[in-house]
Amino acid sequence: MTFPVVGMVGGGQLARMTHEAGIPLGIRFKLLSDTPQDSAAQVVSDVVVGDYRDLETLRAFARGCDVITFDHEHVPTEHLRALEADGIPVRPGPDALVHAQDKGVMRAKLDAIGVPCPRHRIVSDPQDVAAFAAEGEGFPVVLKTVRGGYDGKGVWVVGSVEEAADPFKAGVPVLAEEKVDFVRELAANVVRSPHGQAVAYPVVESRQVNGVCDTVIAPAPDLDEALALRAEEMALNIAKELGVVGHLAVELFQTRDGRILVNELAMRPHNSGHWSMDGAVTSQFANHVRAVLDLPLGDPRPRATWTVMVNVLGGDYPDMYSAYLHCMARDPQLKIHMYGKDVKPGRKVGHVNTYGDDLDDVLERARHAAGYLRGTITE
Amino acid sequence: MTFPVVGMVGGGQLARMTHEAGIPLGIRFKLLSDTPQDSAAQVVSDVVVGDYRDLETLRAFARGCDVITFDHEHVPTEHLRALEADGIPVRPGPDALVHAQDKGVMRAKLDAIGVPCPRHRIVSDPQDVAAFAAEGEGFPVVLKTVRGGYDGKGVWVVGSVEEAADPFKAGVPVLAEEKVDFVRELAANVVRSPHGQAVAYPVVESRQVNGVCDTVIAPAPDLDEALALRAEEMALNIAKELGVVGHLAVELFQTRDGRILVNELAMRPHNSGHWSMDGAVTSQFANHVRAVLDLPLGDPRPRATWTVMVNVLGGDYPDMYSAYLHCMARDPQLKIHMYGKDVKPGRKVGHVNTYGDDLDDVLERARHAAGYLRGTITE
Repeated sequence: MTFPVVGMVGGGQLARMTHEAGIPLGIRFKLLSDTPQDSAAQVVSDVVVGDYRDLETLRAFARGCDVITFDHEHVPTEHLRALEADGIPVRPGPDALVHAQDKGVMRAKLDAIGVPCPRHRIVSDPQDVAAFAAEGEGFPVVLKTVRGGYDGKGVWVVGSVEEAADPFKAGVPVLAEEKVDFVRELAANVVRSPHGQAVAYPVVESRQVNGVCDTVIAPAPDLDEALALRAEEMALNIAKELGVVGHLAVELFQTRDGRILVNELAMRPHNSGHWSMDGAVTSQFANHVRAVLDLPLGDPRPRATWTVMVNVLGGDYPDMYSAYLHCMARDPQLKIHMYGKDVKPGRKVGHVNTYGDDLDDVLERARHAAGYLRGTITE
Repeated sequence: MTFPVVGMVGGGQLARMTHEAGIPLGIRFKLLSDTPQDSAAQVVSDVVVGDYRDLETLRAFARGCDVITFDHEHVPTEHLRALEADGIPVRPGPDALVHAQDKGVMRAKLDAIGVPCPRHRIVSDPQDVAAFAAEGEGFPVVLKTVRGGYDGKGVWVVGSVEEAADPFKAGVPVLAEEKVDFVRELAANVVRSPHGQAVAYPVVESRQVNGVCDTVIAPAPDLDEALALRAEEMALNIAKELGVVGHLAVELFQTRDGRILVNELAMRPHNSGHWSMDGAVTSQFANHVRAVLDLPLGDPRPRATWTVMVNVLGGDYPDMYSAYLHCMARDPQLKIHMYGKDVKPGRKVGHVNTYGDDLDDVLERARHAAGYLRGTITE
């Protein structure tokens, strides 16, 4: 059989769940992981341990792969170009991926193609931040390093010029953005293949706690149908205009005055799509694999009225096994997804999915399980 | 974290799909495989290549495992007892597993606990077969070697005393059974844990072609509710009486006169339960893992009105990839499960699942995909 080999750079939970989705597809999965203990490295047969920042490591890894894709966005653009020059398909390619790597490039491109974003500008020092604030509604202003941030890291909300010094200390360009008066955050997840087929998952509501995704509800409750359609079309358009191949998550603000603005882009399976593992006909992971192999995409439609995902964060107790047993006993319909990671306070170590017809019940079951596993709920 | 290690003996597709189900559960999976190319060995991180018939190989494999379970029923009983004596939990244990290994022992036990079976007797030579036939409805009679058969191998339907010589040539005891006048075959799948919790999947209809499972329909269409309940209770009772831990498949004949008779037992995830991967809240593989770890079991209920599984057998073309692509394009809701095995004519290399509200449509989609992959349907 000529079933292809997918090479994934990065051994985190996204790679772990992509491998899980690739098993029934019959594809071969090869992993470049920082350590043999990484989440995905625990469950994949063909693992290369090495540093993705080293071009020769990447090159050696890529030999024998039919396509290279990613668990994260940190591979240097010039390395991706070198792999492409070697004749290895890189999906998403460097010209697309840069928009998920560099928030300055992302904002410039979205402006150019007419996608609504928060007011923004690259700023050079705290005085420049003050000028940016004065051009709009004043402080607070959101400052972001253009590269390297995730889960709230590399992001500051500053209330004054005095508070605006820190972000400039790393020597990385800084993007200033208006602090959007949003009613909630949404995410539009789409998948696009090289031959241009694309599918859109239902728009979800994403609730953050301390800058980290906490709860996702699919589909987003009480979302105006026209607004949902607009968000889906916006995400499909971004995927097309940026030449994305694979999964694209578009994180959105829904504003008080009924607009949707793009917050962030991610070009890989995304936390806001984890609900799809149990809640959609085809999961984001399966469709990401199908897309990077240019296989026909699977149906993204939901299988249940409501699906809720809640992240399981590490708590004070390093051993979750007895809590896990309790959660299974309490709710035989609960879908637990553990990542095999050591428990550290606040670290994402898994997620739970629940689904059903009654949103309150579905939410309560997911929250209870995640809270019990973390140790914040004890009954 | 103290998440346990499940050791599975045998590297076939059942082990492959058990690993897939174990990934979200966060358990560690260790495999004893005949070769590094076996279906499961391609996708599991921790693989020991070795011969399960060698006790020292088994012993070395079992060190570091919290429990041992099986992809097949071929491990010698005395080896399993030796592992237990070493203090390794073996699930199902040898006292239970022998009923799936030896059809003579199985029939004797089912008789003893009052479970209806086809008329049967251990026979010693062709003349004894003739006597067995004369005691009932005459020929044809079914002859089975008590050990080693599967997928129609080790089974003969003989029409006369002259045809009854072959089964005795292997020197293995032979079981004679009446040829049951059945209207269809059913299967009752249950899972039982060491502390005695048990769940029953809906009874399915199983259609064989040339002695090999071809199509499974869940739940069995037009099955009288009382008969379905009787079959589930019978399977739960067998699991309890035989001390089964893990998945038990009870293959049944539904007779023309409305009885159900036990045909075969399997104590591992079973082909008649593959539909549950996409059609049930908790798949047979996930529940098998939960059972052997004595974790609370998951909900076995169906997620769709109808789920159909059709096996993908190898055809004349060794490369299925282009057919696979075609099937994905034709039916975006199709769930394909490939086993990573080389294609040989008649070999099980995968299965497809479909689900929905219209049984004719669900059946047609699954049959078309399986036929197209095999090459027997070309349009």
